[in-house]
Amino acid sequence: MDTTTLVARRERALGAGAPLFYDKPLHIVRGEGVYLFDETGRRYVDMYNNVPCVGHANPHVVEAMARQQATLNVHSRYLHEGIVALAERLAALHGPAIESVVFSCSGTEANEVALRMARGATGKTGIVCTNATYHGNSEAVGKMTRMGAGQNSVVSDVCAIPFPERLRPLVPGASESDLAEAYLERLRSAIRSLEEDGVGFAGFIVCPIFANEGLPDVPRGFMARAAEMVRAAGGFLIADEVQAGYCRTGRWWGYEGAGFTPDIVVTGKPMGNGLPLAATAASKGLVDGFRARTRYFNTFASSPLQAAVGMAVLDVIEREGLQENVARVGASLKASLHERKKKCATIGDVRGHGLFIGVEMVKRGSALEPDSDRAIEVVNKLKDRGFLTSNAGAFRNVVKIRPPLVFGQHDADEFLTAFDATIAEIDG
Amino acid sequence: MDTTTLVARRERALGAGAPLFYDKPLHIVRGEGVYLFDETGRRYVDMYNNVPCVGHANPHVVEAMARQQATLNVHSRYLHEGIVALAERLAALHGPAIESVVFSCSGTEANEVALRMARGATGKTGIVCTNATYHGNSEAVGKMTRMGAGQNSVVSDVCAIPFPERLRPLVPGASESDLAEAYLERLRSAIRSLEEDGVGFAGFIVCPIFANEGLPDVPRGFMARAAEMVRAAGGFLIADEVQAGYCRTGRWWGYEGAGFTPDIVVTGKPMGNGLPLAATAASKGLVDGFRARTRYFNTFASSPLQAAVGMAVLDVIEREGLQENVARVGASLKASLHERKKKCATIGDVRGHGLFIGVEMVKRGSALEPDSDRAIEVVNKLKDRGFLTSNAGAFRNVVKIRPPLVFGQHDADEFLTAFDATIAEIDG
Repeated sequence: MDTTTLVARRERALGAGAPLFYDKPLHIVRGEGVYLFDETGRRYVDMYNNVPCVGHANPHVVEAMARQQATLNVHSRYLHEGIVALAERLAALHGPAIESVVFSCSGTEANEVALRMARGATGKTGIVCTNATYHGNSEAVGKMTRMGAGQNSVVSDVCAIPFPERLRPLVPGASESDLAEAYLERLRSAIRSLEEDGVGFAGFIVCPIFANEGLPDVPRGFMARAAEMVRAAGGFLIADEVQAGYCRTGRWWGYEGAGFTPDIVVTGKPMGNGLPLAATAASKGLVDGFRARTRYFNTFASSPLQAAVGMAVLDVIEREGLQENVARVGASLKASLHERKKKCATIGDVRGHGLFIGVEMVKRGSALEPDSDRAIEVVNKLKDRGFLTSNAGAFRNVVKIRPPLVFGQHDADEFLTAFDATIAEIDG
Repeated sequence: MDTTTLVARRERALGAGAPLFYDKPLHIVRGEGVYLFDETGRRYVDMYNNVPCVGHANPHVVEAMARQQATLNVHSRYLHEGIVALAERLAALHGPAIESVVFSCSGTEANEVALRMARGATGKTGIVCTNATYHGNSEAVGKMTRMGAGQNSVVSDVCAIPFPERLRPLVPGASESDLAEAYLERLRSAIRSLEEDGVGFAGFIVCPIFANEGLPDVPRGFMARAAEMVRAAGGFLIADEVQAGYCRTGRWWGYEGAGFTPDIVVTGKPMGNGLPLAATAASKGLVDGFRARTRYFNTFASSPLQAAVGMAVLDVIEREGLQENVARVGASLKASLHERKKKCATIGDVRGHGLFIGVEMVKRGSALEPDSDRAIEVVNKLKDRGFLTSNAGAFRNVVKIRPPLVFGQHDADEFLTAFDATIAEIDG
């Protein structure tokens, strides 16, 4: 089927505006490890997808999925050891404060659970998030979506504060410590405004690496002090680890590198290597309270299939040493990109954690003026050279590099050659 | 692992109050067709589960799932023919007014989409539902949950009306036509109150067979005239076919037997035989508008895996003639249960559609006084005899019979023997 016909059929069957990547969309038919293949057999190095974390078509995951579906896949109101074992294994990947797990099918559903947990336990509804974030697509979770940098704003019971960063600081010229204090003051003010508004303060939700904000370098001390402030105000700190967790940063959890401990942890994307699987983990007290208040049940969640596939993913991550792989290859790739920045005036910044790296494109000769057109051009030309990335960040000017965790040094080396050629081509 | 230990581990890992069926919970380890097996190897006839619609561990589904996961499973921003073909096939199962599909991972997510579609297209937010319904567990969809029969009530922008029924009619002694008019008057009044409240009227959401309400016999003409009233008021009729659709009633869709045509159709549970898969289908105009307004994206949905499994389920339903099986076995089972009602004073009613049958338990010698304790006793004793059902309905007094679509006449005959013995045992 030619691409034009498929695009037309798709537009009718899924509706106009179902999102597609790239100026000329890709028609992908097969995946293997870090590679994706289009309908002509052309190979692309996948440097975008965090869901197939242990690699496309991972045989251990395929086998676990098929074996379980051929044995039993049913809802959770019968006893089954598998999902209990997965919950125990997930809880053990955190400190002792995280004890129990509520499974669901998507990050959106898991964030819905987190919000209801925090709101139910506090009896308040006000949530603070950042002003360039995304936590999911339901009505309640969607209230936290911010499409770009903006001002502190209250949408009913959600209050957005400027995300913390050092590149374009809230107070230019401030010391790092003063800058942290400036962002903390915004958090303090948001909590106060929710309290004065009468909705009260239930919690602060963050991606520990501020992924949708563009992976900013955060002023040292901000998150630890934010956590203290949140608890002092009687709220809960929700870590949305959907993107940051599962070894993405070279550590198990994003919060480990961010210097704080969350009360509620939300995970999703990589958990099932493509099987819909998400979780909200917290203290047993928080989970018990949530269950007592809501009698929460989710038809497809906590199933033997989710359990078997979730366990297989954890097995592969551990057996293949993927956390170490991410730390090693990620550090090397980031260092190599830093070298490029020194020589290229349109690379405004290189930052990130493990195998989640952002390369900021800026206007030549400007003081960090974001250039989203250039980022989009880089992304499209990298695709033409066989490397799949995307653009992201508060100004959409960050080339987002976030391959499956099995991405190796050889793949990084190939990418750097293509990246150099792409920049040279664009800069002429 | 003994059951007591597993229950204790589960309580810690999943939190207290994660729901379990039966006074003595079942530990299920294997499924095949209509059968489930516990840890001792004991066989149970599954007369509850609508998700594994083509049978537990269906080999065609297992094969499709494994093959696709071993080939490609990635998000929907690359072109892929599979999901387009599934959307086309689903739309073709409706009349010409249903053209395009938005996929998601759960009935909750699909109902979120339906609400946003209706609200976005009308610019209004008010929704009417019934007073004993359930449409999902998110904050927005959960506002429509009603745990039992109650009065007409407004919760912000959701207005609940009494569900239509003939057994305990809103106007005792009224003719069927007058009764329909009485329920319609409640709908009219709910629409008016939403308009007067300033939120306006966006739509009416119903399960076409009123499954959670307990499968009531609906006064003839109610739904067709309700549909006219909804459209005359500028709203949309949303059919939540999560339980009623996919041949459950012996027809493809519940609305076919209910005498109306919906504007938006929500499907879920049976679509993936256990793989999280749900959909919201509507006219292309409604879907286009929704996509333009929301730029909706769902990480795990519209995937090649959902497509392959969704197609496999439809293949099995068609190849094995399951629609006809449901119509035939369901009619026979319902007729046999009607025979039992004539001889048993505690069976207040037998009703339903296809392989979704409700048997109402009532207090002996009463005028239809609901007896949920007796229903729970019947359910637990049927379980002890190897038949899995549950209790449901506005008064929780309905024994719910809803087996996989592959449930055969032989299974029905076995069940009737066990049912007779159970009633005889309880009645002494």
